[in-house]
Amino acid sequence: MKLPQLSRRALQTPASPIRRLSPLARAARAQGKTTLGLNIGQPDIQTPPEFFEGLEQFKNPILAYEISEGNLELRKAWAEFLQRSSAWTIAPEHMLITMGASEALVFLFMLCCDPDDEAIIFDPTYANYMGFASITGVRLRPILSLLDDGFALPSIEHIAERVTSHTRMILLCNPNNPTGTVYSREETQALLDLCEERNIFLIVDETYREIVFDGAKPFSILELAPQSPHVIVVDSLSKRFSLCGARIGCLMTANEEVLQKALNIAQARLAAPTIEQLACAHMLRTISPEFIHGIRNTFESRRNALCTAAAKIPGVKMHCPAGAFYTIARLPVDDSEDFASYLLTTFEDKKETVFVAPAGGFYMESGQGQNKIRIAFVLEEAKLTRAMELMGKALQMYPGRAK
Amino acid sequence: MKLPQLSRRALQTPASPIRRLSPLARAARAQGKTTLGLNIGQPDIQTPPEFFEGLEQFKNPILAYEISEGNLELRKAWAEFLQRSSAWTIAPEHMLITMGASEALVFLFMLCCDPDDEAIIFDPTYANYMGFASITGVRLRPILSLLDDGFALPSIEHIAERVTSHTRMILLCNPNNPTGTVYSREETQALLDLCEERNIFLIVDETYREIVFDGAKPFSILELAPQSPHVIVVDSLSKRFSLCGARIGCLMTANEEVLQKALNIAQARLAAPTIEQLACAHMLRTISPEFIHGIRNTFESRRNALCTAAAKIPGVKMHCPAGAFYTIARLPVDDSEDFASYLLTTFEDKKETVFVAPAGGFYMESGQGQNKIRIAFVLEEAKLTRAMELMGKALQMYPGRAK
Repeated sequence: MKLPQLSRRALQTPASPIRRLSPLARAARAQGKTTLGLNIGQPDIQTPPEFFEGLEQFKNPILAYEISEGNLELRKAWAEFLQRSSAWTIAPEHMLITMGASEALVFLFMLCCDPDDEAIIFDPTYANYMGFASITGVRLRPILSLLDDGFALPSIEHIAERVTSHTRMILLCNPNNPTGTVYSREETQALLDLCEERNIFLIVDETYREIVFDGAKPFSILELAPQSPHVIVVDSLSKRFSLCGARIGCLMTANEEVLQKALNIAQARLAAPTIEQLACAHMLRTISPEFIHGIRNTFESRRNALCTAAAKIPGVKMHCPAGAFYTIARLPVDDSEDFASYLLTTFEDKKETVFVAPAGGFYMESGQGQNKIRIAFVLEEAKLTRAMELMGKALQMYPGRAK
Repeated sequence: MKLPQLSRRALQTPASPIRRLSPLARAARAQGKTTLGLNIGQPDIQTPPEFFEGLEQFKNPILAYEISEGNLELRKAWAEFLQRSSAWTIAPEHMLITMGASEALVFLFMLCCDPDDEAIIFDPTYANYMGFASITGVRLRPILSLLDDGFALPSIEHIAERVTSHTRMILLCNPNNPTGTVYSREETQALLDLCEERNIFLIVDETYREIVFDGAKPFSILELAPQSPHVIVVDSLSKRFSLCGARIGCLMTANEEVLQKALNIAQARLAAPTIEQLACAHMLRTISPEFIHGIRNTFESRRNALCTAAAKIPGVKMHCPAGAFYTIARLPVDDSEDFASYLLTTFEDKKETVFVAPAGGFYMESGQGQNKIRIAFVLEEAKLTRAMELMGKALQMYPGRAK
């Protein structure tokens, strides 16, 4: 029997680079090895009890659809939490609840771009942006940022040169996944000015907004430009409240047309999960902003432990991140995918090894990720120190070490 | 300030026809009117206690991401429930859990079609198929089915003529939303033969599979062709377990390439909500298939009450549905959208009125829905009888009645 042909977009959509080596990790664990997982941004922080309290309060005998724009109490509670914990807020009617930041991003690729339109991103990039672009037919135009520059944004003149008549949006992740870079107010203001001048959208993915280190103040593009029709913020409760499995995100904008058309798309998929919305509303109403400070301090200590340990490994250059819980490191290897596989299949020290993500999947520019890995520092300090020790030992033994 | 331009696909995506008149209904309720809601497929059936038991069993201190293909215990429990309650089952590895049937359908439009490829649907159609096609750039080719034929499928020869070199899939909803029609084994076998012969996909949305009346046996296309690479079934727990707000659906196919590429798309959006998956797994393991029989009997009695009452209204022709909980009725009016608005804004009888969905939004062929409405019979029998009485009175008083 002939097989029916799948679409080109289906064939082009990449597998997740952070999940691709998972079968090797499972095999390692099946052999009795402990794999210290630095590959995926799943925090090991306990979900706040306020969320579970909210969960228990659901007493409706019918688990009905929520409204498509998202539960109003959740939007109010989220806006009030922002007001309580930071210098700004947003009107609940300027928020649309989505199934994680992921769904908000897919909506925005669809809303801002037609197939073959262009979106500017910064390379390395959150790998799933490539997936979203692929399924929505949008062409990504990457602008390279460099490890040796701390992954700072290139000059605004350089970015401006890349905006063409096909460009519909610039997408920034701030604080950045996968680099942990936090862009300054000046950098984001310059991007905003450019987008307003060229009349294109500036999408800022602020999933990690509050996770910033060294005394920095969390910062949203919406503080700079609360009313700009060019600005759309993507937000999520997943990381700062350790709620990855709740799938609650949102998009925020003062642009009424974007909200209206986003709602049309949202109506087609009916609604985000009901119980999580109510539980998150209860949590946001009752939780102290201190919870986020605790998360921030935890990741700052881990960042310190990780960078200290990595600095001791000969030939490794790790970017010291200022936010989020990721970083990119350059290794003395020619093929980081092969090295990551080696860690899982061959190397062990006292029955332990490390699971890292090769950085190739986070770069659009070919070759850039080949000697780099992405690290998610989502383990306790002692484990991170041990993971770096293991990586150092593995690099000494690895036959593919760069000459 | 100039406003940034939204995409053409955003501008073309229609608002939901069942939610468009909601502001009028809210205004009516604010004036103290009771609106009997027949507009939306939200069952009033109590969610099974087994679901809430599953919810309470979630004790993990971290609400982590589920795997992208969906919790394995849920897929096993779902497959075992199918085996226990019907004549067929499916391998858990041939299932991918999605956020409702909606997400499965969006995945399939993307997987089977590139922009400008064609998909055949049957008119009238589930309105959100038009939304999914719009955001994915797929051209829908509607084939009209007629109220006076009970919305049966047109002849297979007629359908075959509409398959062109651009056609990538035929999408059938069985039992049908919005008509309540249940297609026979013979009809679906003929469609399957056609799809295999022309090497295109047959997508069957079986969200309402078990809700069939008059002693009919629930039936899946996967019973006919469990191994066909051309067949993909979309399923959902929303309707048969009154779990609309849980957002748990799935796609099922023996086509490994479809599963692999669907998984790539699923990885980009990370995962469906964790707690609902575990709660649904518990429910499916412990619930008796009798629960679904009860739902079926409830809707059959309602169907009977509705059709009996509608038959008494002069000038109204209502299709008597064999499944799901919808039907289409032709009214003696020139503009059913205007009549539906009239019901909410002007008409009342003892402070009561009815909320129905104009059928225009369910038809792609222009004009076909203009004198029709879609009814969801999701209320108790007495309320349905009263709703029809109200509609009859309103039709007598309505100034826009067809001459």
